[in-house]
Amino acid sequence: MIRTVEWRKGTVVLLDQRLLPHQEVYRVYRDYRRLALAIRDMVVRGAPAIGVTAAFGIALGMQRVRRHPAEAFERICTTFARSRPTAVNLFWAIERMRRTFESLRDRPLEEIKEGLLAEARAIHDEDIEANRSLGMYGARLLPQRVRILTHCNAGALATAGYGTALGVVRAACELGKQVRVFATETRPFLQGARLTCWELLRDGIPTTLLTDNMAGDLMRQGGVDCVIVGADRIAANGDVANKIGTYSLAVLAHVHRIPFFVAAPLATVDLACPTGQQIPIEQRSPKEVTHVAGRPVAPSGVDVLNPAFDVTPARYVTAIITERGVASPPYRASLRRLASSPAAATPQRKKG
Amino acid sequence: MIRTVEWRKGTVVLLDQRLLPHQEVYRVYRDYRRLALAIRDMVVRGAPAIGVTAAFGIALGMQRVRRHPAEAFERICTTFARSRPTAVNLFWAIERMRRTFESLRDRPLEEIKEGLLAEARAIHDEDIEANRSLGMYGARLLPQRVRILTHCNAGALATAGYGTALGVVRAACELGKQVRVFATETRPFLQGARLTCWELLRDGIPTTLLTDNMAGDLMRQGGVDCVIVGADRIAANGDVANKIGTYSLAVLAHVHRIPFFVAAPLATVDLACPTGQQIPIEQRSPKEVTHVAGRPVAPSGVDVLNPAFDVTPARYVTAIITERGVASPPYRASLRRLASSPAAATPQRKKG
Repeated sequence: MIRTVEWRKGTVVLLDQRLLPHQEVYRVYRDYRRLALAIRDMVVRGAPAIGVTAAFGIALGMQRVRRHPAEAFERICTTFARSRPTAVNLFWAIERMRRTFESLRDRPLEEIKEGLLAEARAIHDEDIEANRSLGMYGARLLPQRVRILTHCNAGALATAGYGTALGVVRAACELGKQVRVFATETRPFLQGARLTCWELLRDGIPTTLLTDNMAGDLMRQGGVDCVIVGADRIAANGDVANKIGTYSLAVLAHVHRIPFFVAAPLATVDLACPTGQQIPIEQRSPKEVTHVAGRPVAPSGVDVLNPAFDVTPARYVTAIITERGVASPPYRASLRRLASSPAAATPQRKKG
Repeated sequence: MIRTVEWRKGTVVLLDQRLLPHQEVYRVYRDYRRLALAIRDMVVRGAPAIGVTAAFGIALGMQRVRRHPAEAFERICTTFARSRPTAVNLFWAIERMRRTFESLRDRPLEEIKEGLLAEARAIHDEDIEANRSLGMYGARLLPQRVRILTHCNAGALATAGYGTALGVVRAACELGKQVRVFATETRPFLQGARLTCWELLRDGIPTTLLTDNMAGDLMRQGGVDCVIVGADRIAANGDVANKIGTYSLAVLAHVHRIPFFVAAPLATVDLACPTGQQIPIEQRSPKEVTHVAGRPVAPSGVDVLNPAFDVTPARYVTAIITERGVASPPYRASLRRLASSPAAATPQRKKG
């Protein structure tokens, strides 16, 4: 079991994903501000994992509060809200913590602290459950032998555990399906090469690494049966913000008539966001592009683009796989229906 | 003037492109076998530059021959023919040298050597002339303000000088057009980041670097007016083998209704090759993918794809820009016509 983010004895512990796959270093955070910086600096990344980390971070920040809890709570939430802009799970987790705080605000301080920690733990545990559930829904969509292209890392490392896109991969393996994963390296941060390959090799799942620009050629040669990616925010109409490069893969899948699946918990669906146009896209440091593994790969002074995400229009998305079932187009209706449906039991693990 | 490959006092001198943009190192070759290894190891790369290097290399190898020139010539040609399989300019240059050799084979050895060196020099000089000519043909296709996306390096460094795709860029600048180049970094070897940016910054041409997977998003946002790439081999039907990732860009350009131009001398057109299916695609070492700047970026032991090139079907190619004019679809007719037409004068440098 990969421990991406954990609450341990009054601290939050993160597996430092910047150092993978070469070093497995766990960092212990006692100060919520340093934890917010860890999100910004991508010690932890992946929309669900960011949400869980922020929830634990709010619980962490509140542990030291002696008075004026409402003011402290706002200050802490604001710090996390400013860490990264695109993944809606961050704001969703803050909102859940806020509702818990509101329900407890007239209670003794110790009770507030305990309640917030319990809520953060629930967010953590529910994320794993959601992934197991959506994994099984997704796995049933796949043929018995399947070659899956994935982008970035939507695995255990991007969540509290198990993963979204890689949750579908893991569930397919549990169902006895023969799976090969093609992992794009995912420049600039190389989450595919560093994280997805590391996770899948640990689990013994056959994995082939390719550079981002090889995916089209692989599709043209009939080497890909479907694409499965995660998401950082899904608009009400089904537009999907995800790691930069996702859009290109969706277009290429469309042209080659390959199903393009998005696997994400409903926490990633932002019904308040009508379309992808309203999703804020984070621009990151040029140095992520001009340097690899700390070394420069471009002449200094060159102008650089570095959007961390792009938006894939809903028309390129074959289905959105959630923990309560699979949403099909038109997404405005299907996503709303799933979001308001009662939490379903995890689907049975019999072969679909 | 960038000196990619030069004959200097009985040696061949290459600018070591593996070390750019950080170091400008010129390597001196006296042994043709080491020069063939330099092609294989990408000290020099780019289809026209490989052709010129092989031509000089054959002249170099013949310099030391004392007897049995025909056998020596065959041995030397075979060594170069085995260096890299995809760029047809290599085989085209060998063939030109062979015709020269055949025409001189009954002459004194010194005369053969001089004739071969003169032919290699002609191949070198004609390549620059061809680039200037195709550059001007291409530049006239472009609007007054133009944002050009290019992939890999089809510049002075890929040729004897001036460049093919970047030859069009340079000619457009000479015509007073306002040009911005978007250069994809071009994993795995990073020719875009390392070479194209270096070349264009030297010339003061506005250049923005992006990772390969950002190109689709940039197109979607209306940031690209046209794509211009070079080629390693163009089949008789207009299918284009070029650096891996070219195919994805061509599909994306097609979907976004952006013109996709291929700029290449006629030496890159292989009329003996009916379609792209017959073009041999070189598979290179996994280490180029798993390591960047000498450092590992993926877990060891992961399976890797590393085709050096892909094939773009002719239907995605808006036009092929050659030194004798611009070929339009259907390419089987237009390429044959250009290949058999007399060499035209370089088009006038007045504004088009």
